Amino acid sequence: MNVVVQDIDRADPQMISGLGAAGVATVHEAQDRTGLLASYMRPIYPGATVAGSAVTILAPPCDNWMVHVAIEQLRPGDMLVLATTAPSDAGYFGDLLATSAQARGCVGLVIDAGVRDVRDLAEMGFPVWSKAISAQGTVKETLGSVNVPVVCAGALVTPGDVIVADDDGVCVVRRVDAPMVLERAQARMASEAAKRKRLASGELGLDMYDMRGRLAAKGLKYV
Amino acid sequence: MNVVVQDIDRADPQMISGLGAAGVATVHEAQDRTGLLASYMRPIYPGATVAGSAVTILAPPCDNWMVHVAIEQLRPGDMLVLATTAPSDAGYFGDLLATSAQARGCVGLVIDAGVRDVRDLAEMGFPVWSKAISAQGTVKETLGSVNVPVVCAGALVTPGDVIVADDDGVCVVRRVDAPMVLERAQARMASEAAKRKRLASGELGLDMYDMRGRLAAKGLKYV
Amino acid sequence: MNVVVQDIDRADPQMISGLGAAGVATVHEAQDRTGLLASYMRPIYPGATVAGSAVTILAPPCDNWMVHVAIEQLRPGDMLVLATTAPSDAGYFGDLLATSAQARGCVGLVIDAGVRDVRDLAEMGFPVWSKAISAQGTVKETLGSVNVPVVCAGALVTPGDVIVADDDGVCVVRRVDAPMVLERAQARMASEAAKRKRLASGELGLDMYDMRGRLAAKGLKYV
Amino acid sequence: MNVVVQDIDRADPQMISGLGAAGVATVHEAQDRTGLLASYMRPIYPGATVAGSAVTILAPPCDNWMVHVAIEQLRPGDMLVLATTAPSDAGYFGDLLATSAQARGCVGLVIDAGVRDVRDLAEMGFPVWSKAISAQGTVKETLGSVNVPVVCAGALVTPGDVIVADDDGVCVVRRVDAPMVLERAQARMASEAAKRKRLASGELGLDMYDMRGRLAAKGLKYV
Amino acid sequence: MNVVVQDIDRADPQMISGLGAAGVATVHEAQDRTGLLASYMRPIYPGATVAGSAVTILAPPCDNWMVHVAIEQLRPGDMLVLATTAPSDAGYFGDLLATSAQARGCVGLVIDAGVRDVRDLAEMGFPVWSKAISAQGTVKETLGSVNVPVVCAGALVTPGDVIVADDDGVCVVRRVDAPMVLERAQARMASEAAKRKRLASGELGLDMYDMRGRLAAKGLKYV
Amino acid sequence: MNVVVQDIDRADPQMISGLGAAGVATVHEAQDRTGLLASYMRPIYPGATVAGSAVTILAPPCDNWMVHVAIEQLRPGDMLVLATTAPSDAGYFGDLLATSAQARGCVGLVIDAGVRDVRDLAEMGFPVWSKAISAQGTVKETLGSVNVPVVCAGALVTPGDVIVADDDGVCVVRRVDAPMVLERAQARMASEAAKRKRLASGELGLDMYDMRGRLAAKGLKYV
Repeated sequence: MNVVVQDIDRADPQMISGLGAAGVATVHEAQDRTGLLASYMRPIYPGATVAGSAVTILAPPCDNWMVHVAIEQLRPGDMLVLATTAPSDAGYFGDLLATSAQARGCVGLVIDAGVRDVRDLAEMGFPVWSKAISAQGTVKETLGSVNVPVVCAGALVTPGDVIVADDDGVCVVRRVDAPMVLERAQARMASEAAKRKRLASGELGLDMYDMRGRLAAKGLKYV
Repeated sequence: MNVVVQDIDRADPQMISGLGAAGVATVHEAQDRTGLLASYMRPIYPGATVAGSAVTILAPPCDNWMVHVAIEQLRPGDMLVLATTAPSDAGYFGDLLATSAQARGCVGLVIDAGVRDVRDLAEMGFPVWSKAISAQGTVKETLGSVNVPVVCAGALVTPGDVIVADDDGVCVVRRVDAPMVLERAQARMASEAAKRKRLASGELGLDMYDMRGRLAAKGLKYV
Repeated sequence: MNVVVQDIDRADPQMISGLGAAGVATVHEAQDRTGLLASYMRPIYPGATVAGSAVTILAPPCDNWMVHVAIEQLRPGDMLVLATTAPSDAGYFGDLLATSAQARGCVGLVIDAGVRDVRDLAEMGFPVWSKAISAQGTVKETLGSVNVPVVCAGALVTPGDVIVADDDGVCVVRRVDAPMVLERAQARMASEAAKRKRLASGELGLDMYDMRGRLAAKGLKYV
Repeated sequence: MNVVVQDIDRADPQMISGLGAAGVATVHEAQDRTGLLASYMRPIYPGATVAGSAVTILAPPCDNWMVHVAIEQLRPGDMLVLATTAPSDAGYFGDLLATSAQARGCVGLVIDAGVRDVRDLAEMGFPVWSKAISAQGTVKETLGSVNVPVVCAGALVTPGDVIVADDDGVCVVRRVDAPMVLERAQARMASEAAKRKRLASGELGLDMYDMRGRLAAKGLKYV
Repeated sequence: MNVVVQDIDRADPQMISGLGAAGVATVHEAQDRTGLLASYMRPIYPGATVAGSAVTILAPPCDNWMVHVAIEQLRPGDMLVLATTAPSDAGYFGDLLATSAQARGCVGLVIDAGVRDVRDLAEMGFPVWSKAISAQGTVKETLGSVNVPVVCAGALVTPGDVIVADDDGVCVVRRVDAPMVLERAQARMASEAAKRKRLASGELGLDMYDMRGRLAAKGLKYV
Repeated sequence: MNVVVQDIDRADPQMISGLGAAGVATVHEAQDRTGLLASYMRPIYPGATVAGSAVTILAPPCDNWMVHVAIEQLRPGDMLVLATTAPSDAGYFGDLLATSAQARGCVGLVIDAGVRDVRDLAEMGFPVWSKAISAQGTVKETLGSVNVPVVCAGALVTPGDVIVADDDGVCVVRRVDAPMVLERAQARMASEAAKRKRLASGELGLDMYDMRGRLAAKGLKYV
């Protein structure tokens, strides 16, 4: 039952960079408001924006053995995604593991648990989105799996999915949906740029989106 | 039952600037430790200090339609205060709405729900105090109200109240109480400046506040 | 039952500076993964690293009277550790108390409750690790104790213990264990420096720690 | 600033009994989904249903002095509603206070804090809805107020409002709105009885509420 | 994107009854400690044990329209499983919907949101496992889907999976794994019956499981 | 560092039965409002009242190996108290372990983690106070200790302390303090019986405790 899947299909680098440029909120909207991880997943330092192809880890609570196993599977442009089999806030990941992952081209970590050495990670420029910051040490006793589908912070992540993460949180895009989502995201960005200009000039959303009639029909009263 | 009150009495700009200069902790003390919103209301970036006259929004959960309605009611110096009719962490507000609000002179947002595009908001200098940061999209289906009294993060806010917000959180001052609270706040600030000087020189609070007798009377033992 | 213990054994300054240099994660590991305070204890601003000898406060909920009493007991190099007799998020500590504590050489505060004036504290360079940031005022009505053993954020802290705090959280080292823990921490730091170099060069943890055999023995399958 | 309002308008006993018979969910719907207290307010034992006219208490954190003051203001049919000026889980209320309140005709307590002696209270048949069950003792040092408007568990409660509480939680009805809400609640109950019969016989809500057309128009696909 | 899948493969009734008899803890162990929903999912009344074939609902926050749609898809022995697209504690489900679901043979509900009319549901014998009890009303404005795979309380549930629920919580078994899991569960139950007898007679787990050698080898000291 | 202390001083049976009869709230008050465990510790079924002499377990997160070790140390009248080295909600304890513990005379369990098979435990009459109910399985890989001082749910518990638990929660009394606390508890019970009678007859706490003067002196106004 504990496996390491070595041969996964990765997301296309152009999809990754395009979606990363769009950012979490736009990507989430572009796929009909799906794919968002729970809002408790926060970056360990502000300002990081990153996207990558998911390498997934399913780890036991308070046991980070599988992280070592997963690092061997990393290729440049990958992003680690760690889910646990039971809730844990322990510090599964720190500066040594980040050094090793970064040496293999990993662009960041999304972990539904804790992380430590956060100041070192910030100095290394290795971004992490986590449920907790905790120095609590972990053991290496129980197996998990690498590159199997996992539920991370409430979202299903399959190896090779595109992960987009920024100050707003984390969003996952299924590999097969990436081209369609990217197209929509870019259309949305273009449309929003135009709207932003109009709103900045003082035009109201009520008029721009033509909302007044529907509000009145629903019964809104101005007094 | 869903109304937009268009004609509200706003707080006096001098009251607003005076209370904003005093800051949340001082204002809260100056009105007998009342008016504080729940401590889960946190700024999306550090260092912002702002005060304004409240324009209130009562919104359904996960529905941001009323924000558009409220923006039309904004005047320079106003601060948006959004409460929900049921708990929600969704991202009601982002950079487009902030652009529109800022174009009308709005100085910030206090929201008992989620906000997104937080990096853009930081770059725009549009401060927000929120319960959550979340990219989760909202709908525009159900009415709420604008400029009615609301309970936001545990505090009653009436349109035209003074909202003060900084790194310590958010405090509300009733419009009618503002002159009295400002007077007390300024007295407190003057008094604290003097105390700060004495404490910095090494004088003890035990002596400065003459506490030793009362401590002994209550039974404190030094061993 | 309410006492102020005036004569405590303090931690050795060399132990303090050595353990502070090692940091929370390393110290926690060096003493067999013990001593960590709960992960909800967060610094009020990033980047502070500090260590000190504990002066403890056991305070009633929402009552900060004992902080004044404790400040008199402070000596240079001490760190205040405040626990409560019942949970509280109120703002026990602000810039006036920090001014007074800093004037007596106190290097920081660890508080299982709330703190306020956080921007002032950041500007003063007075670091605090707390459960909450809250402007909520406190009273001075009920006695507590100073320099008795306390349970703070889940960890037992005895006066004179070494407190180490950084962006990863807070760890306590018993005064009597400090030399042994420091020795182990320094050994660990040396060992990690060597490992970091090997990992940065691309060597895998799987090989460096010789994990492959044990993983196979446990049944891990590569597919 | 600390007052006891002795002369309040109480809710009409017929309104109280009618709304109590309707129950929390029906009353909440009958007033357009308003008035509900936060869902963390839970009964200390199952099966109690009660309604009463609110006597309100605004109490400091961990200080139950005002409960004694409020009990003198109770009349038969009243329900105590306690809010705090800062969050607290302490045990403000136990069997002695319940004995005293019950002797004056009080029908129950709604408290945004903790309660203790819960087994005794169950045996006495004195129902309580609370945020916590806790034996933590409180002090009698700081004043609050009695019979002023309070925000309790997120809802504004004015003295003399009707409080309805059952296994679903707690709902408040403004005294002035009670007749209208009761009328609507009774209409709703009659309508629901008819619907229940049809649904029990196998008729679908999709047909009974004529939803199919609107679902199709919104784009729902059956596959 | 919003679909109702009408033709799903259901779990075998014998598998369902066998796994239901084994209970949550045994089933969870029998499938290698997988499939458990988050521990915040609690029964609305004690003592219910139920198993069924999953009919899934993916619903928007605070919108219960899709429940009506799902009820049409129910067949005897089914269990409703509701997940939301964003967190919500609102009361999606009450006695009318339960009446309708029960009329179609539904055996219970698992909902990662709130439920109301809980006393009525208990009297009807319609068991529910939920994140919250709340009377908060919901709207019928936004589509979701029925019988698509969902993540409910952290676990992936596919239509036709076996859901087992009792006082310990909720566990999901993939339809295809059910025979193997049932076999293992029954073996485990037989084995536990024998162990229970030995333990009841005073034999120690240390001896029965032959743990002493391994404990000593790991370094446990008896002092 | 991992030890089993075999020879501990146990609490006196008369102290245990006396304190158990007094109950949690009374005992907590009798020792100056100390000793209470966090209010999240709840009984798995209502109505149990128990007291015992503590046998303590310090266990790693999600690892219940040490429970087996501790059971061998149990003698009739003991109560198990389990603390973890890092937070965990996993189900450390179920009906097999309860059978074994009960066979050795153990009267109950207090666990700052999860428990499972709760319906079986209720039927066996084996009471448990826990942080969570969860079927999540645990491993047997990492050592902990038995009969060392632990911090359980925020309270320091030393082997041989008296544990009192009922529907109000859990309280610990130091073995050495037990006679004094029992004497005070019994005095309090006698005093409360008299007060209860007076309050039931309609006398007010305001008069019985002579509070009116002090309230007026503090400034309370009746309006």
